Parts: sequence; C-alpha cells; structure tokens
Amino acid sequence: MTDPAESPVIQQQHRHRSVRRFLPEPVGDAQLEAIVGAAQRASSSSNLQAWSVVAVRDADRRLRLSRALGGHPYIEQAPVFLVWLADLARNAQLLRSRGVEPETLRYIETTLLGAIDVGIAAQNALLAAESLGLGGVFVGGIRNDPEAVSEELGLPEHTFAIVGMALGVPDPAEGTGIKPRLPLHGVLHHERYDPEAWRDATVEYETRYRAYFETQGAPDRSWAETTSRRLGPVTGLHGRDTMRASLRTQGFPSE
Amino acid sequence: MTDPAESPVIQQQHRHRSVRRFLPEPVGDAQLEAIVGAAQRASSSSNLQAWSVVAVRDADRRLRLSRALGGHPYIEQAPVFLVWLADLARNAQLLRSRGVEPETLRYIETTLLGAIDVGIAAQNALLAAESLGLGGVFVGGIRNDPEAVSEELGLPEHTFAIVGMALGVPDPAEGTGIKPRLPLHGVLHHERYDPEAWRDATVEYETRYRAYFETQGAPDRSWAETTSRRLGPVTGLHGRDTMRASLRTQGFPSE
Repeated sequence: MTDPAESPVIQQQHRHRSVRRFLPEPVGDAQLEAIVGAAQRASSSSNLQAWSVVAVRDADRRLRLSRALGGHPYIEQAPVFLVWLADLARNAQLLRSRGVEPETLRYIETTLLGAIDVGIAAQNALLAAESLGLGGVFVGGIRNDPEAVSEELGLPEHTFAIVGMALGVPDPAEGTGIKPRLPLHGVLHHERYDPEAWRDATVEYETRYRAYFETQGAPDRSWAETTSRRLGPVTGLHGRDTMRASLRTQGFPSE
Repeated sequence: MTDPAESPVIQQQHRHRSVRRFLPEPVGDAQLEAIVGAAQRASSSSNLQAWSVVAVRDADRRLRLSRALGGHPYIEQAPVFLVWLADLARNAQLLRSRGVEPETLRYIETTLLGAIDVGIAAQNALLAAESLGLGGVFVGGIRNDPEAVSEELGLPEHTFAIVGMALGVPDPAEGTGIKPRLPLHGVLHHERYDPEAWRDATVEYETRYRAYFETQGAPDRSWAETTSRRLGPVTGLHGRDTMRASLRTQGFPSE
C-alpha cells in the first residue's frame, strides 16, 4: 500500500490554491483537450455523462460574461474561461429519437444528478490542469444570472451552467497561500453523524482562519462574518434566489 | 509546461474504473484520514465547506443501508462505505449562534451548492484513494431512500446524503475494463454551445459502447437502451421522484 505522503496525486491535491491572476500565456488546444479528457475519465452517474463544457477564449465574450455576473477580473484576464454545464440535452434527444419521453427530467433528482456529475468532472479537470503547471479558480458566480449566461452561450433546453472555471498560467506575483480548512474531525464522522464533533471544530477553525489571513496581510478576516454575510440575508445570494425559475426555463423544473 | 502524458495525476485519472468487488482487507484510519484530508483540499464554494462524510464500517449498518437502497452487494462487501453529505448544519449553527438567521438556506441555490461541493470533494477523495492502491464506486443509490439513510445515520436538519462511495482493496478477480466515454467533441464546445457537435457523437458512442461490452462478455448492451430505461419512465428513478419532499424535511426546501 502506498504511503499517502508519497502519492503524487495527494501531493498535487495539497498544493491546490485558487488562482485569480494569470500570465498572458494562452492555454493551447492540446492542453485543453487533455484537461477535458481527464474530466471525462471521472465517474458519471449511471454513465449518463450528464455534463458539457464550453471553452470561452474570446476576450469580448469573457468581458460580457464577467459584467453580467457582477464583475470578475479573473474571467476577463484568464486566457480561457470554462463554463461547466449540467447537460441532459444529449440524453433527452437520444430518448426522443427512439420515441421515449424523458419523464424523469422534471424532478429535482435530475437537477442534482447534473450538478454532481459536473462537480466530479470539473474537479478532475482542475487537478489535471494544476498537474500541467496551470492554475484556476471555480466561479460559482456563473449562477448569478443564468439568463444572461444561457443567452451568451446559446444554451438549449436541458442544459444549465453550474460552475465556471478561469484557467491559465498562474501569475507568481499573486502569491496567495493555502487556506486552512476545518479540522478533520469537524467533517469526518464515524458510523453516525455527530453534531458535537463540529461544535469545537468551528471555534478552532475561526482561530486558524484568522491566523492565516494575518499572514496574508488581512488581519480582520473572520470566517464567522464571511459566512454570515454569505448565508444570512438573501442579498448574500447575488440574485440566485430566483434560480428555480431559471432552472425551469432551461428544462429543469426541479419538482 | 508538463506533457499531459507525463502527468502522474492524469495517468491516475485515466486508470479510473469503478470497483464493486473488494478483498477482505480493511481500510485503516490513517488511509481514511488521508483520503478525507485530500477531499478537504479541494475548492469549496465561498469556503463554506458545505459537506461532511460519514464513514460506515459496521457490517450490520452497511447491510441495513444496502437493503434500504434496494440491495447493493458492494455496500455489504466493502470494508468501508462513505456517505457524502451536503452539510449546511455547521454554517447554520454558526449563524444562529451570532443571532443571524440563515435565510438563504431555503433556496435551491443552496441545495445545488451543497451537491456541487460534495461532487468536488468526493472526486478528490476517490482519486486519492485510487492513488493509494484502493478502488471504489460512487453510489447514487444512496438517494433512493433519504428517510431511511437519515434515520440510520442520525442526520440532522440541513444535512442530506448526496452520494455514497464503497471503498476497499480491489478484488483482481473482478477484472472490469475502462468504459469508453463520449467522443471529446461531444462534450467540449468552443465559444458557444453547438448541439450539432453531439448528434454524430452519440451515434459514434453507441458503436464504441457496444464494442467495449462485447469484450466484457455482454454483447447486447446498448447505451441508448440503458439511458432510456434510466431517464424515460419515472420507474427509472427508483423512488427518487419524491426527493424534493425529502430535501424539505432535511431543511433544504429548494425553493
């Protein structure tokens, strides 16, 4: 059995940090195909392969997307911006071509299935990219304005943008560190879920989090405050409170 | 820039196959902690870390879970069965302890966020496990009966089981191959979504798929048929058509 410390995969995973500043070097087709090919090798629910990805290199299109989502400099600066879609359109077309109505698409199960398939595939892609010397960042902000994204990318029924991913060669001047996470015992339960496990874990994490941001020149950052702004009032959603209607429009009624 | 063919990460990703038969060797705590630790290093939306995992080793509990989900021999046989949860309970408790009501939890955005965070984290975990010589399989069947799963694992409000994962040392006697995927041009779009890209891709894939299963001694398998059974009539959901009510019960109204 391999020692975890010796696994090149785990070593790569531990080097992960979100990269938001990029050098002007392009991401070539061969790299992009290797990255998306790696995503395809990941598991997919019932082998439905319920995702697609749109690679946006055009600078004007990236600018329009960034502005529609509220302004994300890294979308504008990255040589390629990937938009990962839950995509049941291929499957739906296949069924309909055989005279079978895809009755299951209207349930929230199918929406979740698409989102899970995307998460699994996209993480393989990001790790593959990082192993090639690239860096990137997931962009949940792609969900801020699904209508604008669907129009910009020409998304048909039964497709929905789940996450974006800005990719490129990291600018070493950015120099961010690796953010601490919750203590392991705050996320790993044994046999049954134990809410007591994370009561002290969240307290311990706040201390770690503040100490980390002090080293990054931001001594006043607090996980509790950031989390409260994000999950408290509906304004923290940046417009995502109307997502269910957007999903319905794109053929994911999520009943 | 690294040649994709030389990346140990991408090599590992290309070796992935779902493993459903295991040797009786246990998965030790050190391995499990390395695997979940690797999952923690993956990106998390707004650093909310909106997931947890329950490691089930107890054979009786695995048997009960398997039966509740319709019978999955690999859950019964694997030395450890991981249940990956969307988990906003930690965050909700943190907010409430500060007098902030987590108003955003009722929207489908939050349900999706949890599912995406789980997909990203769980894929890091599976790849890490594979790099240690283990193997495993995602188990979407965990969503077949959320009530039974929540009761068995004691899941509190704002947690929901998204995917299972059976893990262990692969039994070499299983000897499955690596399933083909859709042609790359069927999933990778440039600048805008092009439905024409996959019309021929699904046809080409059916041929590849049949050829693969012929080598596995199952010459009659058809992707079109499997997909039609899974996505056509509601029976293909194995009970997941009532998931929205289950989500609501667990504190994810998904409005």
